[in-house]
Amino acid sequence: MSHGLPSQPAESFKARRRALASRLGSERAALVFSGVARPRNYPDNIYPFRPDSHFLYLTGAWIERAAILVDGDKDVLFMPPADPGDLIWHGPTPGWAEFKAGCGVDEIRDIAELEGYVRERGANTLATLPACDAVTRYGQGSMLGRSWAAPGTGVDLDAADGALADAMIGLRLIHDASALEMLRGAAAATVEAHLAGMAATRPGLRESDVRAAMERPILARDMSTAYGSIVTVHGEILHSHSYDHRVEDGDLLLADVGADNGGWAGDVTRTWPANGKFSPTQRTMYELVLASQEAAIAMLRPGVRYRDVHLAAGRVIAQGLVDEGILRGDVDNLMERGAQGLFFVHGLGHVIGLDVHDMEDLGDRAGYAPGRTRASQFGLCFLRLDRDLEAGMAVTIEPGFYQIPALLAEGSELTAPFDADGTLDRAALAKFADVRGIRIEDDVLITAEGSEVLTAAAPKQPEAVEALVGTAAGASA
Amino acid sequence: MSHGLPSQPAESFKARRRALASRLGSERAALVFSGVARPRNYPDNIYPFRPDSHFLYLTGAWIERAAILVDGDKDVLFMPPADPGDLIWHGPTPGWAEFKAGCGVDEIRDIAELEGYVRERGANTLATLPACDAVTRYGQGSMLGRSWAAPGTGVDLDAADGALADAMIGLRLIHDASALEMLRGAAAATVEAHLAGMAATRPGLRESDVRAAMERPILARDMSTAYGSIVTVHGEILHSHSYDHRVEDGDLLLADVGADNGGWAGDVTRTWPANGKFSPTQRTMYELVLASQEAAIAMLRPGVRYRDVHLAAGRVIAQGLVDEGILRGDVDNLMERGAQGLFFVHGLGHVIGLDVHDMEDLGDRAGYAPGRTRASQFGLCFLRLDRDLEAGMAVTIEPGFYQIPALLAEGSELTAPFDADGTLDRAALAKFADVRGIRIEDDVLITAEGSEVLTAAAPKQPEAVEALVGTAAGASA
Ligand SMILES: [Mn+2]
Ligand SMILES: [Mn+2]
Repeated sequence: MSHGLPSQPAESFKARRRALASRLGSERAALVFSGVARPRNYPDNIYPFRPDSHFLYLTGAWIERAAILVDGDKDVLFMPPADPGDLIWHGPTPGWAEFKAGCGVDEIRDIAELEGYVRERGANTLATLPACDAVTRYGQGSMLGRSWAAPGTGVDLDAADGALADAMIGLRLIHDASALEMLRGAAAATVEAHLAGMAATRPGLRESDVRAAMERPILARDMSTAYGSIVTVHGEILHSHSYDHRVEDGDLLLADVGADNGGWAGDVTRTWPANGKFSPTQRTMYELVLASQEAAIAMLRPGVRYRDVHLAAGRVIAQGLVDEGILRGDVDNLMERGAQGLFFVHGLGHVIGLDVHDMEDLGDRAGYAPGRTRASQFGLCFLRLDRDLEAGMAVTIEPGFYQIPALLAEGSELTAPFDADGTLDRAALAKFADVRGIRIEDDVLITAEGSEVLTAAAPKQPEAVEALVGTAAGASA
Repeated sequence: MSHGLPSQPAESFKARRRALASRLGSERAALVFSGVARPRNYPDNIYPFRPDSHFLYLTGAWIERAAILVDGDKDVLFMPPADPGDLIWHGPTPGWAEFKAGCGVDEIRDIAELEGYVRERGANTLATLPACDAVTRYGQGSMLGRSWAAPGTGVDLDAADGALADAMIGLRLIHDASALEMLRGAAAATVEAHLAGMAATRPGLRESDVRAAMERPILARDMSTAYGSIVTVHGEILHSHSYDHRVEDGDLLLADVGADNGGWAGDVTRTWPANGKFSPTQRTMYELVLASQEAAIAMLRPGVRYRDVHLAAGRVIAQGLVDEGILRGDVDNLMERGAQGLFFVHGLGHVIGLDVHDMEDLGDRAGYAPGRTRASQFGLCFLRLDRDLEAGMAVTIEPGFYQIPALLAEGSELTAPFDADGTLDRAALAKFADVRGIRIEDDVLITAEGSEVLTAAAPKQPEAVEALVGTAAGASA
């Protein structure tokens, strides 16, 4: 989509804006910007534009250089007027009247009037949020007489802006019916991508062939990917974004691919054997990760602290590694020392919504409940979510097992204490040399009764996965 | 690619840097930045990073936050040091020694030293170019004590920076052997996309299905698209970037899709009948556009002014419209009045290289020879290239015929004079209602003898196109 009306009823956006106004109180109006497209290499050649997620949440409108003002009972959408040249280059596009109806706002004004409006109303009566990109942030900041800390380096907001951030977080954490409809659409396309990927895989192909097979059904549904796909035979490279390795007989292929459905994210990881058959060692580790994931999902229900789910999933991994003789010792003690974090190095998951890591533009403010902060222990420090679950939240559950050479090298800082006292049995570990990296990830909705796996249709039982690999007609090298 | 060494020999980049130094003279050093990745919605979720094209041209290195300094005989690459955390998240990546050898530079320094280096050397001894994105431009400007006009609003450079721009333009306009190798790779993948698109097309699909089929082979080669694909049954919407129309029996499908091969662009347009058979009216107009394109290509050789090729291609269209009774009058006179521009509304093409519109980050400085400027006449004013051709240049040749409702509406400003004196025969035009838009585009290298069509393997003769449509096994709705 490049320029468009909301795909859902105006009422859903109106309801969100009223809920925001009531959370924010009548003292200040909320002003949320949509952002601008960014060039790849010159101004006319842009990356696909994606509006800011807060703006999308409140309007559903896919437009650049716009802002929504939520002022008590009144909503004003500021946007550019139609350019007559657009009719030649872009064809007929919806006009102001259609956006007024489609977004359910009271008034539409020219975005050029926003600066005067802000001056007149008094910038300090407006709460707003920094854009995720520095260009827009700089422009917003200079208009509003503010400076914001850069995202990614911690987020430091004025009190008013902080109140808006907290109100948005409160709303967006608990998905309404319209949000759920979009998430289900993203989940369906994401599942289809994984089915296509398994079917297309055969030794002899390159990772890029499998990636192309997976992204095709997403594009065919007129969606995009929600993040840079990971499709690799080196699953131990956690943020691998190259696709040039040959897929060899005996490799595991790890694919972390998700669809963006009108701005809403899917996020699924599956790991499958390139030749359609797990080796005994691969199967052992795969079943361990799967058991960890299933145990975690079984715990999900309102009131449960996500950090406890993370630790329980890690405990299953720790116990499994003890059972295989890779770790020695008492599981409680191993967990305390973070031994499982040598192999399950990242957090169990994150909230998911419009953003794949939802609201990460606000740093940990969305992922961590007030008063909670990141732990310092390796492994646990990477956990992105530490809240008590509530019905309507959506989270990912994505444990993994990885052998990262840099981490596990003999003499490495991290493993030294475990080598020193014999906790780590490297001979036992060496038997699993054909398991570089496994991750199994689903998107899960918290319900009043427990949970619902939104992406359950992507096979993950080992037999089901094996049965699918290489079944596509075009799965040739 | 996300982080990588040059894919071509160091010597080719070294030769370019020496040629740049010799063009620029010894007075000033050239400093060219690589740029930074930009977030989609939060800092960790970025658009695929693409280095600045000038930087890529001089180094071949695919790295963020880097700069190349070309100082007479000496080349220094400034880049970030390896982050130990990268080993965990990104796996082993090439280090400084490998970039030193791969890029053939004399020295590598920490990018953090650049600011001190600039201070010490004196900013006014460095020529540099504004980045295409405002974030990076702002950072560069403040470091160098400069302000640049925004790209897209005309480019206003200091004398020294202008000299660097002209030196880069002089080099990049004439493709060397390494450049040609990359362009040929881009062309091959682009051709494959069009073959796949034709084969996958059948009435009942959506435009997005065809787009997905076309982009798959590009992704499978571990490439990306060079620009936002246009795949539409509304070819008259020149910059259409939506893909949600149903492909109907009787529609023409226009696809303008190109591959990016390690930063180098392909750019091809084909138009084919959705049902595999041009209607008589579609075939007439298709053959007219093809005749225009072939006439233009036949003219290409060193010394020829591209604007004259544009006008000759327009003349073929004008004559054809007279033959069909759509335009009445003397062709010379019609051309003078720009009558053909009602239907062939854009320019014949542009230079192509690293950027699909090569060096458009420098405005018209690359496309227009010194002293030449845009015409004011509708149609001609959109021409992006007005230089005398030289061997080694690569250009696109892309005439078209479009019925744009907003332009052709009775009483529209543009058509009124042609309606008033009976030049435009709307009854004759009405017979071609099933031809909304046709464009045929190839990438052509200027050679000493004439020209070579780099993308000739994409079928364009009507019979060849018809024979391919709908032949893919998976071309079902
Ligand atoms: Mn995830
Ligand atoms: Mn073109």
